[in-house]
Amino acid sequence: MAVREPIRLGMIGGGQGAFIGEVHRAAARLDGKYLFCAGALSSNPKKSIESGKQLGLDEDRIYETYEDMILKESKREDSIEAVSIVTPNNLHFPITKCCLDAGYHVICDKPFTLTRNEADQLVEIANRKNLILAVTYNYSGYPMVRQAKAMIKDGDIGNIRVIQAEYAQGWLSEPLEREGHKQAAWRTDPEIAGIAGCVADIGTHAYHLVCFISGLMPTSICADVSKFVEGRKLEDNANILLRFDGDATGMIWVSQVAIGISNGLKLRIFGDKGSLEWNQESPNELIFSALNEPSQKITSGSPNSKIETSRVSRLPSGHPEGYLEAFANLYSEIGDSIMNARLGQLTETAASAPSGYDGKRGVIFVESVIRSSSRGSVWVNL
Amino acid sequence: MAVREPIRLGMIGGGQGAFIGEVHRAAARLDGKYLFCAGALSSNPKKSIESGKQLGLDEDRIYETYEDMILKESKREDSIEAVSIVTPNNLHFPITKCCLDAGYHVICDKPFTLTRNEADQLVEIANRKNLILAVTYNYSGYPMVRQAKAMIKDGDIGNIRVIQAEYAQGWLSEPLEREGHKQAAWRTDPEIAGIAGCVADIGTHAYHLVCFISGLMPTSICADVSKFVEGRKLEDNANILLRFDGDATGMIWVSQVAIGISNGLKLRIFGDKGSLEWNQESPNELIFSALNEPSQKITSGSPNSKIETSRVSRLPSGHPEGYLEAFANLYSEIGDSIMNARLGQLTETAASAPSGYDGKRGVIFVESVIRSSSRGSVWVNL
Amino acid sequence: MAVREPIRLGMIGGGQGAFIGEVHRAAARLDGKYLFCAGALSSNPKKSIESGKQLGLDEDRIYETYEDMILKESKREDSIEAVSIVTPNNLHFPITKCCLDAGYHVICDKPFTLTRNEADQLVEIANRKNLILAVTYNYSGYPMVRQAKAMIKDGDIGNIRVIQAEYAQGWLSEPLEREGHKQAAWRTDPEIAGIAGCVADIGTHAYHLVCFISGLMPTSICADVSKFVEGRKLEDNANILLRFDGDATGMIWVSQVAIGISNGLKLRIFGDKGSLEWNQESPNELIFSALNEPSQKITSGSPNSKIETSRVSRLPSGHPEGYLEAFANLYSEIGDSIMNARLGQLTETAASAPSGYDGKRGVIFVESVIRSSSRGSVWVNL
Amino acid sequence: MAVREPIRLGMIGGGQGAFIGEVHRAAARLDGKYLFCAGALSSNPKKSIESGKQLGLDEDRIYETYEDMILKESKREDSIEAVSIVTPNNLHFPITKCCLDAGYHVICDKPFTLTRNEADQLVEIANRKNLILAVTYNYSGYPMVRQAKAMIKDGDIGNIRVIQAEYAQGWLSEPLEREGHKQAAWRTDPEIAGIAGCVADIGTHAYHLVCFISGLMPTSICADVSKFVEGRKLEDNANILLRFDGDATGMIWVSQVAIGISNGLKLRIFGDKGSLEWNQESPNELIFSALNEPSQKITSGSPNSKIETSRVSRLPSGHPEGYLEAFANLYSEIGDSIMNARLGQLTETAASAPSGYDGKRGVIFVESVIRSSSRGSVWVNL
Repeated sequence: MAVREPIRLGMIGGGQGAFIGEVHRAAARLDGKYLFCAGALSSNPKKSIESGKQLGLDEDRIYETYEDMILKESKREDSIEAVSIVTPNNLHFPITKCCLDAGYHVICDKPFTLTRNEADQLVEIANRKNLILAVTYNYSGYPMVRQAKAMIKDGDIGNIRVIQAEYAQGWLSEPLEREGHKQAAWRTDPEIAGIAGCVADIGTHAYHLVCFISGLMPTSICADVSKFVEGRKLEDNANILLRFDGDATGMIWVSQVAIGISNGLKLRIFGDKGSLEWNQESPNELIFSALNEPSQKITSGSPNSKIETSRVSRLPSGHPEGYLEAFANLYSEIGDSIMNARLGQLTETAASAPSGYDGKRGVIFVESVIRSSSRGSVWVNL
Repeated sequence: MAVREPIRLGMIGGGQGAFIGEVHRAAARLDGKYLFCAGALSSNPKKSIESGKQLGLDEDRIYETYEDMILKESKREDSIEAVSIVTPNNLHFPITKCCLDAGYHVICDKPFTLTRNEADQLVEIANRKNLILAVTYNYSGYPMVRQAKAMIKDGDIGNIRVIQAEYAQGWLSEPLEREGHKQAAWRTDPEIAGIAGCVADIGTHAYHLVCFISGLMPTSICADVSKFVEGRKLEDNANILLRFDGDATGMIWVSQVAIGISNGLKLRIFGDKGSLEWNQESPNELIFSALNEPSQKITSGSPNSKIETSRVSRLPSGHPEGYLEAFANLYSEIGDSIMNARLGQLTETAASAPSGYDGKRGVIFVESVIRSSSRGSVWVNL
Repeated sequence: MAVREPIRLGMIGGGQGAFIGEVHRAAARLDGKYLFCAGALSSNPKKSIESGKQLGLDEDRIYETYEDMILKESKREDSIEAVSIVTPNNLHFPITKCCLDAGYHVICDKPFTLTRNEADQLVEIANRKNLILAVTYNYSGYPMVRQAKAMIKDGDIGNIRVIQAEYAQGWLSEPLEREGHKQAAWRTDPEIAGIAGCVADIGTHAYHLVCFISGLMPTSICADVSKFVEGRKLEDNANILLRFDGDATGMIWVSQVAIGISNGLKLRIFGDKGSLEWNQESPNELIFSALNEPSQKITSGSPNSKIETSRVSRLPSGHPEGYLEAFANLYSEIGDSIMNARLGQLTETAASAPSGYDGKRGVIFVESVIRSSSRGSVWVNL
Repeated sequence: MAVREPIRLGMIGGGQGAFIGEVHRAAARLDGKYLFCAGALSSNPKKSIESGKQLGLDEDRIYETYEDMILKESKREDSIEAVSIVTPNNLHFPITKCCLDAGYHVICDKPFTLTRNEADQLVEIANRKNLILAVTYNYSGYPMVRQAKAMIKDGDIGNIRVIQAEYAQGWLSEPLEREGHKQAAWRTDPEIAGIAGCVADIGTHAYHLVCFISGLMPTSICADVSKFVEGRKLEDNANILLRFDGDATGMIWVSQVAIGISNGLKLRIFGDKGSLEWNQESPNELIFSALNEPSQKITSGSPNSKIETSRVSRLPSGHPEGYLEAFANLYSEIGDSIMNARLGQLTETAASAPSGYDGKRGVIFVESVIRSSSRGSVWVNL
C-alpha cells in the first residue's frame, strides 16, 4: 500500500471557547489522514489570530476572516484542499457556498443549513463541481451503529415495525442564555440558530440515525414542541410521532430540559424477527433480541461482529471506544473520499459518511417539525 | 392493636389455566387480611368445580356460576364480604354490577369496563351503597412508585415539564391467537376485550401510573395505533402524545410486539428542579437526579425513604420485593378500607389504592386513544 | 390432585422487633401449605405474649417459653407438626434439639449451630427419628439460582475452573452495637453469635450457594479476617481463598462494612465452556456467556428456562419475584417433604431445600475460616 | 502560551500484526505533542522496513534493528528525543537500557522488566542521566480514575478499609498458543513473557491502579495461581489476598480464562466514610456512596468533578471517552515532562504519569505472586 499524502485542511470557526472545533481537529488528527494547516477560527479577527497561534498554525496561514482565507489560500501552491466548517448554524450556508465555489471540499457541522432551499443549492454546487460535501452526523461513526445498520440490512430483525428514538439532554433546563453562557446563547437565538432549538441542535442527529440505521424513510410526522424555560425563544422539548414508508411507525423525543440526562441519544428498533437497542452513553454495546431467544449483548471489537463494524473499530472488545473515535471514523471515511477525488476516481462521499443530501434531509425534518407544531401539532408530510 | 377478623373473600374467574387469578389469591394471602372461601372460578361450570376443589375450597362454596355464588352466599351467615373479579374484560361490568347490587365490596381487574357509560354506572352504585370498589392497577403498589409520588408531591423535582412513559411487551409479536394460546385469544378478540388491544390490556396501567405518580391530569391526546400482526383484530402498538393541565407534555408508547421486552413498564418524569426514573423490571430502584447534581439511586427499604414508601415496604434495602408484594400492597390497603367499612367509619377506598373512579379514567383513556386514531390520529380531549 | 391439609406450624423467636420472623411467616403463608398456629415468640415472656396476640394466634397457643410450647402442644390433638426456629444463633442448638426430641420437624434459621459437634448431634437425631430438619439458606430458593445449578449439572458451562463469590453489606460500617441497635448487638456479641460475625451471619449463605450451584465441595481455605469497627468483638470483613475437589479455585469476600452495598450476594462461575453470573439484588436475571458467543440474559419465568427453574417460578418473565418468593420456595419444598413424611413416604428434605447436613457444612466453614485466620491466615482443610 | 515544538519520537516494536504499537502511535498523535519520525518496528528486519513504509516514515529513518536506530539517530541533527518501546516483555530491559544509555527519554510498555534487578538498573540510569522513564500503566489515564484518586486524597471516603480489585479476560480460555495465535504465543512463553502469565500481562495493571488510586502500599500478599488450560506453561488465573500498610486488606483476582469477560478491570474501595466503584468497561462513570446516603453516579466531564479529573477530560459529560483517550492522557503528561526536561526544568515524570519506579513495583508484585504461590500460597512480603 502506497502511503497517501495527508489532506491539507483548513478550519473556519472553532477558536477559543468553542467545543466542537477541537473535536473536529482531534478527529482529523487521530488517523493521520489530515494536516491542519490554515484557519479563520473566529468571527472576531483578534480572537481568530490568537486561536491560530495557540494551535501552532504557521502565522501566514492564520486568517482574520474566512473570506480572506479562501482568497489567499487559493493562491498558494500548497493550498488547503478541504475546509471544516464549525461555526454557528446561520453561517453554514454562506461559508459552505464560498468554499465550494472556490473549489474546496467541505466538511460541515450540523444542522446543515437554516432552510431547505439553502441545502438544495449547496448540494447542487457540490454535485456540479465534483466536490465532497460532508455533514458531521458524527454518531453514525460508532462501530455499534454500523453493526446495527448491517444487521438490519442483513435481515437479522426482519421487517421493521416500530422505531423508538430519543435524544435528551438536561443542560438547558435553566435560562443559561441569560447568564452569559456562550454555547447556550447562540443555540437559543433564532437569528443564529434558525427556526428551531433542540430539534435542530440534537434532534437532527436522532433523525439521521433513525434513517441511517433502519434504511427507512419517514413520510410524515406529528410534532408537539414546547418552550419550557421562561423567556426562551426556541423550543427546548419536542415530542414527535413518525410514520415510515410501509407500515412502520415511530416516536422521537428531543429535549434539552431533561434534568439528569447528559447526552442521551438512544435508539430501539423492533422488527418482526428481533430487535436492537443502542445507547450513545454506552456506545460499545448493542443489545440484540431475536424472537423467543434471550437478549444478547453484542460488543464493539468482538471477533464475530459484522465486517462493516470491524472496519471502523480500532480496538478489541472491552477496550472502550468513544465519541472522538466515532467522529474520527467519519473524518477517516471522508478523507478516503477526498483522496480518491484527487485521482478523479470518485466524486461522492464514501457510502457511509453522511453527505449534503443527508444534511438536507435533516433540514427538511426541522422545517417539518416546526410546521407541524405551528399548525396545532397536525400530521405533515416530510 | 386488636386483631381484626380476616375478610371473607370470593373470587369470580381465575380458575385453571388463568394467570391473574392465582396472583390475586397470593396477594390476598400474603398479609393475612383475607380468607378466600368461595369461588365461581370459570365460565365453564365443570372447570369451575374442578378449580375450586384443587384450591381446597369447601365443596359447598364452589359454585358453577357467579350468579349462583352471589345468590347462595347471600343466604349464608358466614357469607363472603368482598369479591375479586378476574374474568376477561367483557364480564367485568355485569359481574361487578351484580356483586355491588348484592352488597358486596368489589376488587375488579383492569381494564375496568368496556365503556365509559358502564364505568359510570358502577361508580354510581358503589357510591350510593357505600361499597368499596377497587380496580387493580397493581403497579401502583410498588414501594418505589409510592416514593416517586411522594417526592413529586413534596416538590423534590419542582414543576413537571415532561413525562415519558412506556409499557412494552413482546409476547404478541406472532399471531398466537391463531395457535390456541388462550391468553392471546381473548385479548385480541373484540367481543371479549372490547375496542382496544394492548392499549386496554397494558396501556391503562401506564396511563394510571402517569396520573398516579405525577398528580397531573391529561387533557388531550393524539394517538397513532397499528395492527402489525397479520389478521389481528385489535391494535398491538400505540404511539401516543399527551398534553396535561398546565404546560406539561408527554408521550406514552404501548406495544405488545416489542421483541426482547418482557414486561417493560417505565416512567420518567422531568420537572424544573429534578427528575425521576422508574422501571418495573428493576422495581426496587428509583433514579433521582436533582438539578446540577449527580444522579442518585434511591432503593426500596432504605432508611431515608419517605413514609409513604416504608409503609408499603416489607424488607430492608437489598432484599428485592416484586410483583406479588406490590399486588399484595393493594390488597392490604383495600382490606383496610373494607375493615373500616365494617365499622361504618369509611366508605371509600384508602387514599392510595385505585378505585372505580381511576378505573373509569382508564376506560376514557382507551376510548380516546381509539377515537383519536380512527379520526386520523388527531388530538382529542380526554 | 387431592388437597392436602396444611401443616400446623409453631414458631420460636420472631416476635416484635425481629426481622426474620415475619419473613418466615410470610413465606409459610404465600403458598397456603402451612397454618401458623402456635408460638413462643420471644425469650421475654411478656413480649412473647404480646407478639402472639398481635399476630392473631389463639390465646391458648401463645406460650411464654419454648419449653412450655413443646410441652403443651405435645398434649394437644391438633398439636403443631413442625417448628420454625428464628432465634439468635446460640439458641438454635438447644431449641432444635428440644423440638426434634419431642418429634417435631424443624425449620431452623442459619447459621445452624455454634459448633460442628452441635450440628452433628442434631443431624443424627433427625436421621434417627425420621424427622425433617431444614436450614433456611433462603437464597437457594431463587429461580435463577436453580437455573444456574441446572445449567451446570447439564454441562452448559463445562468443567468449572474458577468461582468468584461475595456477600457484602454496609450496614455495620459504624458501631451500631453500641447505639442500642438490637440486630447489630446480638450479631456482634460472641456470647450470642458464636465465634464469628459476618462470616456466620452472611458468609454461610455465600458458601452454601457456591456449593449448591456448583455441585463442588471445597477442600481447603485460606482466610484473612478483620475487625474494622473500633471495639467490635467479631470480624466484620473476611477475604477468603478456596480450593475445590479437582482443580477449581475460588474466592469469597464477606463484609458488613462495605458502604454503598445493601445486600450484595453475587456469584460468578467460570467453566471451560462458559460462565454464569448472578446477583441477588437483580435476582431475576442470570447472565450466561458461552465460549466465543455474546453474553445472554436469561430471565426468570421465560419459556425456555429449565424445568428446575419453572418449578419454583410463579410468574412470567418481567414480573419480578423477590426475596419473599425465594424464601417461600424453600417453605413450599420443605412443606412437601413434611406432607410426604406424614405418609411415611419420605424422610428426607426434598432434594433442593437445604438440610441439617448443609447447615453442618456451613458451621464447618465458619470454624475453618476462624481457624485459618487465627493461625496467621494459613490454608486449612475443610 | 507559546507553542512548543512537538517531541520527535521513535518507536521500537509495534509493526504489522501488533496491537499495542498502533495504540501508542494514536495516543501520541491525539494531542499533537509528538511527531513520530523513526522506527525499528520489528525484530524481523524485513517486516520492520515494510511496517515503516506502511506508516509513512521517511525511508532513511526506517531501521532494520533498534541498535541501528539508536546509532544512526544519534548522529542526526534532528534526532529523535524519546523512544516508545512496545516489544514483548523480555526485550524491555535491553532496549530501554540501550535507549537510556544513548540519552533518550523512554516510554516503555508494561510489565516493565522481567526481574526486579533489571528494573533497579533502569531506574538508576534514568535518575543519573536526568531522563524521563515512563511505564504505560495506561488505565491510570482515565478521568474517573483520576477522580477516584482525588476523592480519596481529599478524604471523601475516609480511611480505607477494604480494596476489591480484579482484572479478568476470557480470551485465553482455550490453548490459542498452540493454534498460531501470535499474541497468545508470546504471552504464554516463559522465554519471552518471563516467570508469569496473566499476572504480568494484566495483573500488573490492576496492582498499579490499586496503589495509584488508594495511595496505599501493600506490604504482603498470599497468592494461589493456576494453569487451567492444558499444556499452558504460565499461570492463567491468580487469586490473591493483600494486606496494606495500616489495617486495610484486599483481594485481587486476575484471570485470562474468564469466559464472558472481555477486559474486566474493576476496582472497589471501601473506607469508613464512603466507597468508590469503577469499571474500565464503563469508564466514564464512578459510583460514589457516602455513609447512609444513596449511591451517586459521578460522570466524566461533569462540571462538578475534581480539577484533577477535568484536566484529563476532553469532552463534556455524556460524550464517552475511551481507552485511546486515557492512553493519550499519559502520552500528554509524559510529553509535558519531556518538554520541561528540554529546558532543564524538571527531570521527573509528571506527578500522575507512571514512572520507572511504578514499573519496578509492578515487577516486585509479579515476583512476589509467583514466590508466594510456589511456596504453597503462603504470605510473602512485598
